[in-house]
Amino acid sequence: MIEIVHENSIPVSFGDCDPAGIVYYPNHFRWFDATFHALLFRHGEGHAAICAGLGSIGLGLIDVGGTFRSPAVNGDRLDLVVHIVEWNAKTFRLAYRGMIGGRPVVEGFELRGVFIRDGERLRAGEVAPLRAILEAGAGRAAS
Amino acid sequence: MIEIVHENSIPVSFGDCDPAGIVYYPNHFRWFDATFHALLFRHGEGHAAICAGLGSIGLGLIDVGGTFRSPAVNGDRLDLVVHIVEWNAKTFRLAYRGMIGGRPVVEGFELRGVFIRDGERLRAGEVAPLRAILEAGAGRAAS
Amino acid sequence: MIEIVHENSIPVSFGDCDPAGIVYYPNHFRWFDATFHALLFRHGEGHAAICAGLGSIGLGLIDVGGTFRSPAVNGDRLDLVVHIVEWNAKTFRLAYRGMIGGRPVVEGFELRGVFIRDGERLRAGEVAPLRAILEAGAGRAAS
Amino acid sequence: MIEIVHENSIPVSFGDCDPAGIVYYPNHFRWFDATFHALLFRHGEGHAAICAGLGSIGLGLIDVGGTFRSPAVNGDRLDLVVHIVEWNAKTFRLAYRGMIGGRPVVEGFELRGVFIRDGERLRAGEVAPLRAILEAGAGRAAS
Repeated sequence: MIEIVHENSIPVSFGDCDPAGIVYYPNHFRWFDATFHALLFRHGEGHAAICAGLGSIGLGLIDVGGTFRSPAVNGDRLDLVVHIVEWNAKTFRLAYRGMIGGRPVVEGFELRGVFIRDGERLRAGEVAPLRAILEAGAGRAAS
Repeated sequence: MIEIVHENSIPVSFGDCDPAGIVYYPNHFRWFDATFHALLFRHGEGHAAICAGLGSIGLGLIDVGGTFRSPAVNGDRLDLVVHIVEWNAKTFRLAYRGMIGGRPVVEGFELRGVFIRDGERLRAGEVAPLRAILEAGAGRAAS
Repeated sequence: MIEIVHENSIPVSFGDCDPAGIVYYPNHFRWFDATFHALLFRHGEGHAAICAGLGSIGLGLIDVGGTFRSPAVNGDRLDLVVHIVEWNAKTFRLAYRGMIGGRPVVEGFELRGVFIRDGERLRAGEVAPLRAILEAGAGRAAS
Repeated sequence: MIEIVHENSIPVSFGDCDPAGIVYYPNHFRWFDATFHALLFRHGEGHAAICAGLGSIGLGLIDVGGTFRSPAVNGDRLDLVVHIVEWNAKTFRLAYRGMIGGRPVVEGFELRGVFIRDGERLRAGEVAPLRAILEAGAGRAAS
């Protein structure tokens, strides 16, 4: 399996934090999602162009989880790494790990699909075409 | 076990949605968290007063997950219900279920602790005093 | 001029607040925008249907301002009222006022346009068709 | 007047954008605020340390405005510059300008004060001590 990975460096700011002074947790998922979208620009042409090519409305979320190891505060720099760790027929799985200065802060995953509009509903399409795009991009990035 | 539950009705707006026109998923966690905080006002005196009484900096998150069943869009009303489903020594678990007009949209959980500042670090304190507060509040609400 | 107005009641939650314990100010603009979109559902069929009818990609923002009179905190209920106070050829102006229990908290405005896609660019279209829709809706609401 | 300035480079992501595919405007104010807080780390020791020294609960917002020149989309890099342009007795004014690849996107300002808790209320304290801290920091940064 060709490794598809991206590292993102997130500056944690005042407004990301709650009255306890630590990061309000939904922001960690904003950063997961932003890191996934940065990966799509690194290994492909970004979400809009990829979805247009696939006839998809979006590489949407099916399942997500996060575990919080230690707090992040204003002024921290969160180093967040994403790997694509699993390709299934109609889903793919991303693993995230965030550290601040070597200290574990957050771990998590996203299970996503290639959403296709089907009348009023959404359905999950085949992921093989997406995999081909991103693996080709990863090959180019590595060479 | 005394049932501790709260129902929240969330108006989904344009700004909660992404370029695919459906809710940007971190917002679902904002709504989980807001529903938990509304529960604390219903069954107690709210997060600040409860934490002051407990010597805690916050009823913080340890672990969280969500599963997305169907999309939510601008103009929808999301009916979100939270139950406290588990009390452990140093953690408690909340279960969430969100529906739009009877259609399942999101399910999830939060595992939280009573965070105590301990020098530079945070540690999880006993949850029994929090449970006593909320169960007393639930008793008053039911009577 | 037919009055077009909408009142919104916003529950302020923990996650809307910053480390000082008061509302992080960009959230006030989320609430302005959500109140505008609620007005579009009250006096019309909502943003998507209205824009489809107008051939517009969105009733977008040109200029905005806010003045903050007093803080809002977790557990407050913010009563936010919007009026359309000006119709120009290619812009319209909304005035906002937010109170908590009769205490002034925020005042502001938005200047918006009917954005039309024009190749790579956006341009502001005529607002008269939007005015006609909302005034007809306001007439129905009042009768 | 000693120039106090900071430049921030903001990666615009999918989740920052609305169903029209362009940045949801309250995010521009999140970025204004994040740039101000980055300035406080560059020219001082950050918001928490500065406020502790001043006996302030926060360098809070009094008045704010923004003008939007052109849209920003997923994948853009927004170059945002802040200057402190005015020091008054009890307020100071920041000017913001955001460009994408040389194209003007957003301009705006914030009027802020040094908020002091005064029983139940907040009042604006003298800004001279803050000015002294930041000008000393700017001097060090320039030398």
